[in-house]
Amino acid sequence: MQTATQAIDNGVNVTALLGAREALAQAPEAARFTWRAHCDWVMGTHSRVAVEAFHGLGETQQHRQRFTFDVDHPAVFAAEDHGPTPVEYVLVGLAGCLTAGIAAVAQHRGIQLRSIRASVEGSMDIQGILGMDPEVRNGFDDIRVVYEIDADASRAEIEALVAQSQKRSAVYDLLTNPTHVMVSVK
Amino acid sequence: MQTATQAIDNGVNVTALLGAREALAQAPEAARFTWRAHCDWVMGTHSRVAVEAFHGLGETQQHRQRFTFDVDHPAVFAAEDHGPTPVEYVLVGLAGCLTAGIAAVAQHRGIQLRSIRASVEGSMDIQGILGMDPEVRNGFDDIRVVYEIDADASRAEIEALVAQSQKRSAVYDLLTNPTHVMVSVK
Repeated sequence: MQTATQAIDNGVNVTALLGAREALAQAPEAARFTWRAHCDWVMGTHSRVAVEAFHGLGETQQHRQRFTFDVDHPAVFAAEDHGPTPVEYVLVGLAGCLTAGIAAVAQHRGIQLRSIRASVEGSMDIQGILGMDPEVRNGFDDIRVVYEIDADASRAEIEALVAQSQKRSAVYDLLTNPTHVMVSVK
Repeated sequence: MQTATQAIDNGVNVTALLGAREALAQAPEAARFTWRAHCDWVMGTHSRVAVEAFHGLGETQQHRQRFTFDVDHPAVFAAEDHGPTPVEYVLVGLAGCLTAGIAAVAQHRGIQLRSIRASVEGSMDIQGILGMDPEVRNGFDDIRVVYEIDADASRAEIEALVAQSQKRSAVYDLLTNPTHVMVSVK
């Protein structure tokens, strides 16, 4: 397996990540990150949200560029559909998180990936957000992610990659466990 | 207040939403929505996620256009920063969800909005995702949203708008309450 390990390249710098882990073990304060987004209301249910910088390793870190996103409701909600709905952005984050994890774990395990596709879907009864039934929650009642992975590995190895990615995924954790959210007016 | 109510315009069609609520009360099956995203791995921690269609009101609904998003890890994680991190996409969704709710509630209450800005931040100890400490969770340990709202309303009325938006927000619910997420390999 060692020869294969050296030849494989999924584009993840595992050596750097393992180095970071050692460095952070000496300076756990540097592991405290704060991620940020800034939102400006445009009109109706349409907002524009910018992601530009975050705090980590003891200082402000700039993304390579400023990323902006339109969030809106669709035409069936009597809105203008200038962008995905808020819950679809959550699915984007979940898909990206689990997929990055699969690539990182595969690199670490010496498994060459050829392709990864994921279909993500979340079911919701909109009687919740419309305030029609207090027994119906606002969010998804269930989320399903299905992976199709082409890699130099057995099915069992591929399933193990996916399982390990789930175990270390920030967004999977955010969805499956409760987080305190404090909303205030300045 | 009635004259003001008729003149105000936040761009939210409250009449249509109230009509939808009545229609759905007669046909609750139509309120079952499924939101979708499709993810393709690019390289390393970089993926591209598309949002294009969803299911609702008994049939497939197309967004006005296909929206695509790059998700990646930043340079400090030894990655190429082709897009925001997965957790930042979750913050985008949260900001967009609460802000759309504020606009809708304000319209319903006859409050003219002039501007809404939100700063959202989530704190995380990355010892979790790096697998350094099993006591540290992978996701945010805390999320804070601060609103600055300029509107024809008292501070108490503005705070009430924000509180009502939280109460009906899908993403706020998704973060503060656990959801079942099923991940499988096809």
